[in-house]
Amino acid sequence: MIIVMHPDATQQEVDGVVDRLRSLGADVRVGREEGRTIVEGSIESLLHADSPWDDFPGVDRVVPQVPGGRRVGREFKPESTVVSVGGVEIGGGALVVVAGPCAVESREQLLSTAEAVAVAGASILRGDAFKPRTSPYTFQGLGKAGLEILAEARSRTGLPFVAEVIDPRDVELVSAYADLLRIGTRNMSNFPLLREVGRQSKPVLLKRGRASTVEEWVDAAEHVYNEGNHGIVLVERGVRGFDGAARNTLDLTAVPVAKELTHLPVMVDPSHAAGRREFVAPLARAAVAVGADGVMIDVHPSPKSALVDGPQALLPEEFARLMRDLRAVADVLGSS
Amino acid sequence: MIIVMHPDATQQEVDGVVDRLRSLGADVRVGREEGRTIVEGSIESLLHADSPWDDFPGVDRVVPQVPGGRRVGREFKPESTVVSVGGVEIGGGALVVVAGPCAVESREQLLSTAEAVAVAGASILRGDAFKPRTSPYTFQGLGKAGLEILAEARSRTGLPFVAEVIDPRDVELVSAYADLLRIGTRNMSNFPLLREVGRQSKPVLLKRGRASTVEEWVDAAEHVYNEGNHGIVLVERGVRGFDGAARNTLDLTAVPVAKELTHLPVMVDPSHAAGRREFVAPLARAAVAVGADGVMIDVHPSPKSALVDGPQALLPEEFARLMRDLRAVADVLGSS
Amino acid sequence: MIIVMHPDATQQEVDGVVDRLRSLGADVRVGREEGRTIVEGSIESLLHADSPWDDFPGVDRVVPQVPGGRRVGREFKPESTVVSVGGVEIGGGALVVVAGPCAVESREQLLSTAEAVAVAGASILRGDAFKPRTSPYTFQGLGKAGLEILAEARSRTGLPFVAEVIDPRDVELVSAYADLLRIGTRNMSNFPLLREVGRQSKPVLLKRGRASTVEEWVDAAEHVYNEGNHGIVLVERGVRGFDGAARNTLDLTAVPVAKELTHLPVMVDPSHAAGRREFVAPLARAAVAVGADGVMIDVHPSPKSALVDGPQALLPEEFARLMRDLRAVADVLGSS
Amino acid sequence: MIIVMHPDATQQEVDGVVDRLRSLGADVRVGREEGRTIVEGSIESLLHADSPWDDFPGVDRVVPQVPGGRRVGREFKPESTVVSVGGVEIGGGALVVVAGPCAVESREQLLSTAEAVAVAGASILRGDAFKPRTSPYTFQGLGKAGLEILAEARSRTGLPFVAEVIDPRDVELVSAYADLLRIGTRNMSNFPLLREVGRQSKPVLLKRGRASTVEEWVDAAEHVYNEGNHGIVLVERGVRGFDGAARNTLDLTAVPVAKELTHLPVMVDPSHAAGRREFVAPLARAAVAVGADGVMIDVHPSPKSALVDGPQALLPEEFARLMRDLRAVADVLGSS
Repeated sequence: MIIVMHPDATQQEVDGVVDRLRSLGADVRVGREEGRTIVEGSIESLLHADSPWDDFPGVDRVVPQVPGGRRVGREFKPESTVVSVGGVEIGGGALVVVAGPCAVESREQLLSTAEAVAVAGASILRGDAFKPRTSPYTFQGLGKAGLEILAEARSRTGLPFVAEVIDPRDVELVSAYADLLRIGTRNMSNFPLLREVGRQSKPVLLKRGRASTVEEWVDAAEHVYNEGNHGIVLVERGVRGFDGAARNTLDLTAVPVAKELTHLPVMVDPSHAAGRREFVAPLARAAVAVGADGVMIDVHPSPKSALVDGPQALLPEEFARLMRDLRAVADVLGSS
Repeated sequence: MIIVMHPDATQQEVDGVVDRLRSLGADVRVGREEGRTIVEGSIESLLHADSPWDDFPGVDRVVPQVPGGRRVGREFKPESTVVSVGGVEIGGGALVVVAGPCAVESREQLLSTAEAVAVAGASILRGDAFKPRTSPYTFQGLGKAGLEILAEARSRTGLPFVAEVIDPRDVELVSAYADLLRIGTRNMSNFPLLREVGRQSKPVLLKRGRASTVEEWVDAAEHVYNEGNHGIVLVERGVRGFDGAARNTLDLTAVPVAKELTHLPVMVDPSHAAGRREFVAPLARAAVAVGADGVMIDVHPSPKSALVDGPQALLPEEFARLMRDLRAVADVLGSS
Repeated sequence: MIIVMHPDATQQEVDGVVDRLRSLGADVRVGREEGRTIVEGSIESLLHADSPWDDFPGVDRVVPQVPGGRRVGREFKPESTVVSVGGVEIGGGALVVVAGPCAVESREQLLSTAEAVAVAGASILRGDAFKPRTSPYTFQGLGKAGLEILAEARSRTGLPFVAEVIDPRDVELVSAYADLLRIGTRNMSNFPLLREVGRQSKPVLLKRGRASTVEEWVDAAEHVYNEGNHGIVLVERGVRGFDGAARNTLDLTAVPVAKELTHLPVMVDPSHAAGRREFVAPLARAAVAVGADGVMIDVHPSPKSALVDGPQALLPEEFARLMRDLRAVADVLGSS
Repeated sequence: MIIVMHPDATQQEVDGVVDRLRSLGADVRVGREEGRTIVEGSIESLLHADSPWDDFPGVDRVVPQVPGGRRVGREFKPESTVVSVGGVEIGGGALVVVAGPCAVESREQLLSTAEAVAVAGASILRGDAFKPRTSPYTFQGLGKAGLEILAEARSRTGLPFVAEVIDPRDVELVSAYADLLRIGTRNMSNFPLLREVGRQSKPVLLKRGRASTVEEWVDAAEHVYNEGNHGIVLVERGVRGFDGAARNTLDLTAVPVAKELTHLPVMVDPSHAAGRREFVAPLARAAVAVGADGVMIDVHPSPKSALVDGPQALLPEEFARLMRDLRAVADVLGSS
């Protein structure tokens, strides 16, 4: 159970709550969060208690630490969160475009793509060094060498970069290089990995699980938030559907649903949803129109020879055209 | 099998094809469609033959009348179809907005809503007189009396109207009143009903079945087209999903997928997809941005007292605000 | 609202309820059903009233005619219903096997299959004369001629037969021939068709819609029941899934779920679920083991040349082997 | 690429293949598997080569290490695999029943349940010490202390036990105690975890991902197999569906589908599929009837006070009754 005190609660009022909790046998933690004092009572019996904590002097509200009571929830923090990534703000009103190849394949491939997306106006570079692959016999990523290439691209273009992490034992390594960590769709419920990224100082992109409800996705974010990392960005990327025409069924309704449930920013990845280049641009425009805080676009200089997900990658010139459309829609709907 | 002749095929060339078909024992029909001569060979054995019809003089292309070979398909007619509804063109580049209550409940309710949506700029009025309802014990529609109210609203506002038809025995009645017939999601594969509306002179809105692939939806349109009614508009309205946060999972990818497969216009109904008013405006904006030819919006003067689907209906003033946003997105993306 | 009186309620008690309803302005219908007096109050305002009808003398229980309150529900009639089809009882404890080709294609095909399934121990013959088909250019059934062939097969084998009906205008024709009408998965929510079969004296097999919840399926049965036809058998046949390995995802959990919600018998069609012959026998055994009242099996003397659904049809000898397994499982679990 | 030599291939024939591979620049590994010599060529260019390896003397078949070419596939090893778990054989014809509580909550709870399921005839005990939980604020398992309790239960009952592992860093710990490791549904595509269990000497239960196709599930098994651990048992536990009546949609068709694709044993977990005690027994019977090699059943001495998944747990006496039914079905269908 978390007790959020009023911004102007006195120390005496805080002590009153803490003492009462201790008298009930609870371990108690006291901290500051979003400018307020937070009192956490750890014992499980309290979760179900009907104690009138709301009536204690200085208490603003009580958030039970059970499903439905979450620190990533709007009820806990009504104001929208802005996540800063190497100087780029996500959730602050301006449209953020993340772009780059699905995987780092070589220095040349990554650097040329990075420069092209920087010129076209992307804010953040993407490119993975560790890839989760369906088959063990396909390209699994360049590992640390890939991270070094990404860092070089950052130096050259000034773009911060995001990279996927798939193993709790690699989190520190990826965190040492990347500006933004990404948890992929397969790992949305990989709780040891979520806890590990929750202990880092770098913000996290949390993709929605392929068959997860928005509630479950927000619960996954709570695992990260609860470890102390509050810089979390949700990314809708399509759910499993019955129609094979696209790779996944992009669920744009999830954007307003998630924004109602949580104060975190929400982005959309139309590339992995579509699976086919032809559908990426219309879906990206729709993502901006539905109110996403940003989009993530696969761009590759030579999609036909891409080692991973070539069919969904835009050419740099297609990406540049798309950027113009996205800015136009964002402008007219009040983002910039 | 359908053989589409070149626009400038001679009569002799047409006769050559017809004679060859007859010599194979086929019943043959000859007609004109989209400005070209069409030769249809009826016997089933031909469907699978490898006769080199493409090599016959004057033949443009051959469309086997089997799944994958369809007269609603782009391969049969590459140019996009424009459907005219009481003077309103759907698919011609201008955004079309259909609006009104889910069901006609009373003369006053319908007339006041019709006037509000006309003022706000809707092009076509919606309102149903026959409703398919999950329970037999709820309001099933006003029937013929509802159609008369809709006709009165048309006289007052100048808006053509669309109404659902759910029974083959009612098709002539609804067709006598409405400017546009609607086949609802539950009836997408109701083939006797599709055939009956295929014999009418009024165009048809064909909603996607709740668990139908885009291929199956396009096949359903073929049942209408094949009876001679070529004025068909597809409407995406969400598919069945696993997340109860919204009523259905709006599948906006289906818009570019359908436009690739077929030459028919494609609209989107965000109201029935969302099931909740809060999500209708963002989804409608996304539908325009993804490239839909129009949207269908539930509007009700008093959603709380609506007999059908009140929670998803916009108030007239909310609808007017949405119209401004939709026009802005359409303008910036090149529709008007 | 339906008020079910105690079996031994007096006429005076019935009158008391009726008079009270009338004094509230309700239209009232009084009838006998399942050996009890049923009082129906028609006005809608009553549906939501909190009148303590349960306390009236002679009242057994009150079933609101709103979703959740159904005459096909267990709360309305706790005892399981047994449906009689030409002397065969479905739901009475003995396993019922319906078998035959998906469609009647010719007299010879149907008669030979009918004799084979009769010899192997099937109780009811299947074979359709009207087929709903994805494409308008494929075989649509033999119509009335097909019904006559089915009737001849009945004379020869003694097996009653079930045939699909897809058009409300054909219901009387099919009902004149068949012992059991079938509503296919595409028509589960075709309410005009449900109402029409609800007015016939022949019982009805109601297949589950491909993307319908069990609640919606039971609601569809209520449309039939409400018209007076109480001989309804539910058939699970698989729902739409994301894995293309089988045609549909057979949802055997639906059997105990449906039996909890409703007093109607529940059967399973493993053939249309599987779509492949290899999976039919294991799924049929599982259907019996899960507690279904019967199964429906596609059998064809020459599956490779079948006009409809050949890949899922068993050969007669495969069906005979399956019958032995099904009887063994039924025996050991207490059916016979 | 893997080249499987004939059982009676000579050393000279093996050398011929190896030499040819090396001459093409491939790194080559030679090993023995299932009694045959296996030659692996590592360079990626060979994956797509059309070299007529099949024609080399002594070569039995060639399995490309690309999707569709798998060592867990039937094409690689046509005979069914039998996995031995502490003396219990899974896949050998006899029905295997795994039973116990979802989580180890206390010594008393686990020991009493273990004894009850042993008496009723279970072959393997289940009980988790590490639990992946939707919320970070609920019981996460007892960790190492739980494993010690499980080991004590093994000593007392003689039953080997299975325990879930959710973190690659815990694999050695769990492997030191448990007889069988379990990968849960959320971790089916957690490849670092799969690789880690692939390096252990203990066999692995691999549950199907909640929205994974059978193909993807078999691909996940390949990640384990490829590391050298060949003792893999697949467990179907229901997929995500749209009907909330049960927790998941148990997909029993997956059993014959998986057995066609792979030589690994396949079990079914009806408890996690159903989510409700009432449905567990019928689904367990159906799982045996469909041909599963075993079932996994949640049993708890006091389901109402269970910390995890109480609503789906059977009481020990319900489990004992179910065991009798399962044995009866297995007997009559030829297992024992």
